[in-house]
This record gives sequence, structure tokens and C-alpha cells, in this order.
Amino acid sequence: MISHQNPYLLKTMTLFVCQMASSNIRYGEGVSREIGMDLQNLGARNVCLMTDKNLSRLPPVKAVLESLASNGVQYKVYDNVRVEPTDTSFKDAITFAKNGSFDVFVAVGGGSVIDTCKAANLYACHPDADFLDFVNAPIGKGKPITGALKPLIAVPTTAGTGSETTGVAIFDFEPLKAKTGIASRAIRPTLGIVDPMHTLSMPERVAANSGFDVLCHALESYTALPYNQRSPCPPNPIDRPAYQGSNPISDVWARHALHVVAKYLKRAVRDPEDREARSSMHLASVFAGIGFGNAGVHLCHGMSYPIAGNVKTHSAKGYSVQHPLVPHGLSVVLTSPSVFNFTAPMCPERHLEAAEILGADIRQVKREDAGAALADTLRHFLFELQVEDGLGAVGYSREDIPALVKGTIPQERVTKLSPRGHTEEDLSRLFEASMKLY
Amino acid sequence: MISHQNPYLLKTMTLFVCQMASSNIRYGEGVSREIGMDLQNLGARNVCLMTDKNLSRLPPVKAVLESLASNGVQYKVYDNVRVEPTDTSFKDAITFAKNGSFDVFVAVGGGSVIDTCKAANLYACHPDADFLDFVNAPIGKGKPITGALKPLIAVPTTAGTGSETTGVAIFDFEPLKAKTGIASRAIRPTLGIVDPMHTLSMPERVAANSGFDVLCHALESYTALPYNQRSPCPPNPIDRPAYQGSNPISDVWARHALHVVAKYLKRAVRDPEDREARSSMHLASVFAGIGFGNAGVHLCHGMSYPIAGNVKTHSAKGYSVQHPLVPHGLSVVLTSPSVFNFTAPMCPERHLEAAEILGADIRQVKREDAGAALADTLRHFLFELQVEDGLGAVGYSREDIPALVKGTIPQERVTKLSPRGHTEEDLSRLFEASMKLY
Ligand SMILES: NC(=O)c1ccc[n+]([C@@H]2O[C@H](COP(=O)([O-])OP(=O)(O)OC[C@H]3O[C@@H](n4cnc5c(N)ncnc54)[C@H](O)[C@@H]3O)[C@@H](O)[C@H]2O)c1
Ligand SMILES: NC(=O)c1ccc[n+]([C@@H]2O[C@H](COP(=O)([O-])OP(=O)(O)OC[C@H]3O[C@@H](n4cnc5c(N)ncnc54)[C@H](O)[C@@H]3O)[C@@H](O)[C@H]2O)c1
Ligand SMILES: [Fe+2]
Ligand SMILES: [Fe+2]
Repeated sequence: MISHQNPYLLKTMTLFVCQMASSNIRYGEGVSREIGMDLQNLGARNVCLMTDKNLSRLPPVKAVLESLASNGVQYKVYDNVRVEPTDTSFKDAITFAKNGSFDVFVAVGGGSVIDTCKAANLYACHPDADFLDFVNAPIGKGKPITGALKPLIAVPTTAGTGSETTGVAIFDFEPLKAKTGIASRAIRPTLGIVDPMHTLSMPERVAANSGFDVLCHALESYTALPYNQRSPCPPNPIDRPAYQGSNPISDVWARHALHVVAKYLKRAVRDPEDREARSSMHLASVFAGIGFGNAGVHLCHGMSYPIAGNVKTHSAKGYSVQHPLVPHGLSVVLTSPSVFNFTAPMCPERHLEAAEILGADIRQVKREDAGAALADTLRHFLFELQVEDGLGAVGYSREDIPALVKGTIPQERVTKLSPRGHTEEDLSRLFEASMKLY
Repeated sequence: MISHQNPYLLKTMTLFVCQMASSNIRYGEGVSREIGMDLQNLGARNVCLMTDKNLSRLPPVKAVLESLASNGVQYKVYDNVRVEPTDTSFKDAITFAKNGSFDVFVAVGGGSVIDTCKAANLYACHPDADFLDFVNAPIGKGKPITGALKPLIAVPTTAGTGSETTGVAIFDFEPLKAKTGIASRAIRPTLGIVDPMHTLSMPERVAANSGFDVLCHALESYTALPYNQRSPCPPNPIDRPAYQGSNPISDVWARHALHVVAKYLKRAVRDPEDREARSSMHLASVFAGIGFGNAGVHLCHGMSYPIAGNVKTHSAKGYSVQHPLVPHGLSVVLTSPSVFNFTAPMCPERHLEAAEILGADIRQVKREDAGAALADTLRHFLFELQVEDGLGAVGYSREDIPALVKGTIPQERVTKLSPRGHTEEDLSRLFEASMKLY
């Protein structure tokens, strides 16, 4: 019998930890019509429903509002969510939430809406907190959330962020021109209502870009630094970060999501009436969300935050917004070929496996060529989906690289999960290699 | 754009629902030593630690007690859990819990301990309830649980039941000589601490039998009636049963667990020092638990309850108990060849896929032979693991079949999830076909 006094164990025990947690998820065609009953079951008397201007006129919001009405649920609508929110837009939503004394929050929309609603709930329940208190360090103070929040039901309308499953809320911090966020299990939605009917109205580019987000969540969490190599390892479980590195549980989700992306993303983008494909991608976004919500993401996401934050004039097709925008999924996927080429030496088998799942024939590929194989596969995949030809095509040039690198530095929370350590020069080279893809 | 007024949708929406929910799980070598900190984090002042007599002397309990002591956590130990609990043994534990005014419960043991602890917590928090109030109908009243329970941390020491993830507590109802249980999301543990070191001390037959439980959880949830064919479909989500039929989310878990069982169960049984195998099986029990906790099980489990309940003299090797016992995993797996032979026509592809995962060469097998293929594969698997040769070998003969059928009838909660409808005659034939396996 092996003794529990084994000194090896005592020394390493806090390393070998992986944790599985996610919101409850309900998935099915038409399930969003049940939300009125859920709110009644929660005893809701004064619901805050958040969405964006565009969605407020579309079927997903209509379906939810009808369900609220037919169940006699009282609510107020906030439809001023900014697509890709900022600190300013978060604060506007927070003010609305503070003034409303709501008892339940409902978010109907993509990641922008769900993230905004998480923040509104958080600060409305902590009225004395400063905005930066809960924002990730080093930009904010990264204080732990101790008070209780109101229930939040998230109804995702994109097949992308998986925000309905995670304790993460992302915004663009304008003073730094880079995204950052709030990360705590406390802001995870109580329930995610995943109704694939909602994705049928997604414009072609929203389907593509949010699908790339799923792709990168899966690839990054699958290749993230393994959970037993991450440091520091806070001995007290309560101090551990939500992002804990790749692990046997998140691997199951990531691999499965990757299979679905390989099978369905192209179909879902090309034919909005392809219910099977859109529905499968909607569920894949949940799977990948649970995966990355536990394992974390790394360089594609870390580098995407300044790509989004420094946007100049690029206007995103299919996104009903006035401001310049590099949509999240696009900002993430544009660096993916160079990123995975860079990380492959640390776990070539996983990179090869990913390439194979995405359709490459890897039988003749050597381990040392794993990075090139996955990068080629990704470039091919993006080309077929008519993705802009690199950072150059969304308005960046070599002169912007120092600013992009500078904006990546504070993203340590995610970049430190890269399986391969990296210098600022490495980051420069990765941005440079992403200027042109084809 | 597809209208949400689509009448097809309105009619069927409550069918297309699958839900994902499970306890939080922490997995890793040595993680049970952290439990003292978890209890401190929960503000525990008076902990009830439940286990069984055998385990109370073994390393898993010692490791937990040391962690409690070194974190200054006050506790009382109840080590009178019965292996395969009964209504009488549940009530004894409930009395202990009621008298202790505990604020947190900790279960260290196999399914017997975890289930007993769930019941103790439930009734201690509902001191005025009758024992049958929360027991599944038709044996009990199946009342919904409305009050709040105390936190329960489950530390599984077998690689089997997955009880740390589920809202189920099973006991043998002696007046009927059949098992039944309590099923409600409310009794799901707050946290499961899955420390694979704990499984190293499992005797060979406990490893085998609890592994068969994992196998059957995976096979039954993968072949259960699909979630969109189950009826009735309560329109209010709160009225839906925990067991909702096979669905795209539970499928991921079930399939993955099956792969692990195929790869590691034999190794785990044969070599207690094979850490990789025992550790993998421990995690597989979690996966399969999450799978069946959402999808449900069907005939093997439904029929196992009278097989366990009517036991005469069979004494279980490796189980440190005085009473006759057909251990749960054994009682479940003995009927599996005949059960899957019977259910295969309803979803032959899934049965074939399962046979293939378990090692069969199915390339030449016709769909109509899927049942025979899986049954043969299972018989071979059981033979290699030296499993008793059918119900006959654990003390049953043809004369017992009417009693076994009678004890299966009230198990409707699970048997109705069988993909194939069945009469009492069908059940008779299934028991008969399970008398001898090889
Ligand atoms: N919290 C997390 O875990 C997480 C993870 C990844 C990304 N994000 C964040 O989420 C945001 C991106 O979210 P997103 O990709 O879901 O898109 P989004 O919410 O920004 O929406 C994009 C556009 O699509 C429209 N739209 C959304 N659903 C629609 C539908 N069904 N029909 C028609 N139009 C629809 C919106 O109105 C908007 O114009 C970014 O801010 C990103 O940083 C968060
Ligand atoms: N709640 C659920 O979801 C669920 C699911 C399946 C089965 N069950 C129930 O769980 C019970 C069976 O539980 P089980 O199979 O986990 O076994 P168990 O708890 O009955 O334990 C079996 C034997 O193994 C010993 N043991 C356990 N762990 C050990 C270890 N690490 N080292 C040495 N000895 C150890 C115990 O002392 C006992 O003698 C049954 O009552 C069954 O009906 C519950
Ligand atoms: Fe993302
Ligand atoms: Fe079981």
C-alpha cells in the first residue's frame, strides 16, 4: 500500500490539481421560450434584461420577451450594450443596474451582452467598489469577489464566446488601448440557455468570426501549459486562478469542440439555413467554453487584445456598429498560424493531432514539423472561409508592432499559460509573421 | 430567417432539452489533503465526517483527518455506514446527523458512504420530513426538496459510482428486497475531491466491481432513450427529472469514459500498483458519473436492484462485510450481455461503436448483429476479469426469476429510459439469459 506520507506527494500535491466547473447549461431548439418559467421559479420580481440595439429587434430577444410577458414577469430592458464593450460602456450598464434594484439579470446576445451583464450584476451588488477593484491585475486590483451576486441567466445568440459558461467578462480598457477583464467564478451565470434557433439569424461574418473564437478556445486550451507545470500553485484552493492549464478534463471538451468545428464550421458559415451545422456549432461553443474556462487560453487571445484595442479604421462587415472594429474572433484567429507554429515544439503531438482533426494528412509529418503542419492547415482553413489576409488587411503595418507588443505585456494572466516561454522579441516576430497569411 | 412562431417548434420545444450539471470536481494526487482548507474557507465549525468501519482504518480517511487536524477543523466521525446501505442503516446515520447540528458534511468512501452522507444531510436539514417523503415514487412519495442543505464534500475512494457528481442516493429498501433511492439535484455534493491515491488501497474485487459500475454507467447512458424521445416532458423546467435520456452532452462523457475503461480497467484490476491505470479509472468514474447523472441509466441498473436486494448467501470477496452481498457493480454487469443484446435493435450503431471501443473488430458485423457483437465482447471482457459465471454463480436459479422481475417493476424511474420498451416477459427472459454467461 502506498503511504500518504510519500514526500514526493507532499511536495507536489498542489500541482496535480485540475478542477471542473461550469454553469448549468440547457440546450435545445426553443428552450429560450422557457425562460419565463425559470424566472418565476427563481421568484423574480424585477428583472434586468440586457441586449444590444441590433438584437433588440431580432427574433432571439422577441422570443425571450414573449416568454416573460406570458409568464407575467416584470422586467426592464437595457439595450445599450456596446458591441465589444469598453470600460465606458460597462459603466453605463452598471449605472443602469445600480438604479434598478433588480433581483435577476438576463443577458440575450453574444459575448458583448453577456459580459456586460456580468459586470452590471457584479457592481450593482458591490455598490461601493471602485471599477478597477475587480479588474484583473496588473491593470486593475484583481480583488477577490466576496459578496453574493444576483442570479444571471445567459442566452447566447452567437456560436462563439462560451461566455454563458465562464466566469470571465472582457472589455476594452480605453486608456491602454487593450482589452482586459474580470475573472472570477463568482460572475459565472447561474444558467445558460442555449437555443440553437437563435443562431439562425447570425450574419455570415458573425458566424465565421464567432466560430473562430470557438476554434481558438479549443486549440489554445488543448495546447495550454499543462496544469501540473503551472506556477505559482497557491496552496489554498480558494486562491487558485480559474485558468489552471490544460488538464484531462478540459482536454475532453477541447478535443470534442475541435471535432465539431472541423465538421461543421464551414457549413454553418456558408449556409445560414443549415440548422444541423449552426446548431452543432452552438453546442461546440459551450463545449469549448467549458474547456477554456477551466484550462485557459494563451497567446492568440493575449495578443488579440491589443489587436482589437488599437483598431484604426477597419469596419467589420455584418456587425451593425458605427465604430471601427476588429471583431474578437477575427482578432484571435489572425495570429493563430504563427502562434501554433511557435508553440508546437513544446507538445508536438497535440499540435499534430489538432492538424489531423482539422483535416490534414499527418501520416508523413515529422514531430519537428508539427508547427508548420498545423499552421498550414489553419491558413488553408481561413483562406477557404475568406478571412482577411492577415493583420495587414485589417489596417496594421510593421510600425504598429511595438504598440501591439506593449499591449500584450499586461495580458500575463493568459499569456503565461503559453506552453512556450516568450520574450518581447518573440511577440514582435509573431505579430510580424501574422501581417500576411496567404 | 426562421420565425420563432414556427408551430413545429412550439409543439416540440420541451422535447429538445438536454441539461448539463454536475458538482464541482477537483482531481489530483494528494488533493484530499487540501480538504482542511476547503472547510476553513467554508467557515465550517462543526463537521460531520462519514465513512465505513473498514475505511476508517485506511489511508484515505487518515489523510483527510490529518488535514482537518492541521487546519484546526472541529469534527465528529460517523463510521457506521453499511456497505450497500439499507433504509435502516440510512436512518441510523440520519439520527447521528440530526443530533449533531453539523454545518458541513464530509463523506470519505465509496458510493455507500457518499450516498449515506447525502441522505443524512438531507433529513438533518428537513427534521420534520418522513423518511419516505423524498424517496422515489412509487416506493416513496418523491416529494421535491425545497429547503437548503448544508455543504457536502465527497471524497470518493472507489473508482465506480460517480456519486460525488450526482444527485442520487441509493439504498436497499428491506421491506421490498429491492434497491431504490432519492434523486434530486438538491443532494448533489458541493464539491467532489477526487484523489487517485485513494484508489491504490482498493482490493482487487472492489476495483473490478466498481469498474464495472463505470462501464455500465457509460454503456447505459450512451444507449438510453434519446432526450428528445422521452415523455412526459414537463413544460416547467423545475419539474423535469434529473435523468433526461441520452443527449449530445452526456454522449461526450459516456464515450470518453468507455475509452478509458477499455484502455485501463484490466490493468487497474490486475495491478494495484499501476498508478496510471487506477488514476485513469478514478477520473473515468467521474466522467461516467456526469454522463449518467444527466442521461440516466436503464435496464442493467433497474434489474440490478432486485439482484442486490434478494441476495441469499453470496459473500463478496474483498468486501470487509459480514452480511451476504452481491456488490453493486457486479449486480449491474451480470445482465449486461443480455440487456445490450436486447436493446441493440433500437440504436445498433451505438452498440457497435461500444463494441469497437471495447476492442471488437466490427468491420464485418451487420447492423442486425450489433447486439450479439456487443454481448460477446462483454462476455469476453468479463471472463478475462474472472467475473462469476452469471446470476447462477451468485446464488440465483430459475425459481427466483419471478421475484427478480417483481423487484424490477418499481424501478420505472430508470427502466423507462431503456431505448426498447419491455414487458414482464421480456424481463424474465433477460434474467434467464443472464443465469450463465460463458
Ligand atoms: N466572457 C468570455 O468568456 C469571452 C470569451 C471570448 C470572447 N469574449 C468577448 O465577447 C465579445 C464578442 O462576442 P461575440 O463574438 O459573441 O459577438 P458580439 O456579442 O460582439 O456580437 C457581434 C455582432 O453580432 C450581432 N449578433 C449577435 N447575435 C446575433 C444573432 N443571433 N443574429 C443577428 N445578429 C447577431 C450583434 O448585434 C453584434 O452586432 C468580445 O468583447 C470578446 O472579447 C468573452
Ligand atoms: N449515488 C449514485 O449515483 C450511485 C451510483 C451507483 C451506485 N451507487 C451505490 O453505491 C454503492 C456501491 O458503492 P461502491 O461500489 O463505491 O463501493 P462501497 O462504497 O460499497 O465499498 C465497497 C467496499 O470497498 C471498501 N473500500 C472502498 N474504498 C476503498 C479503498 N480505497 N481501499 C480499501 N477498501 C475500500 C469499502 O470499505 C467496502 O468494503 C451501492 O450501494 C450502489 O447502489 C450509487
Ligand atoms: Fe475568445
Ligand atoms: Fe451504478
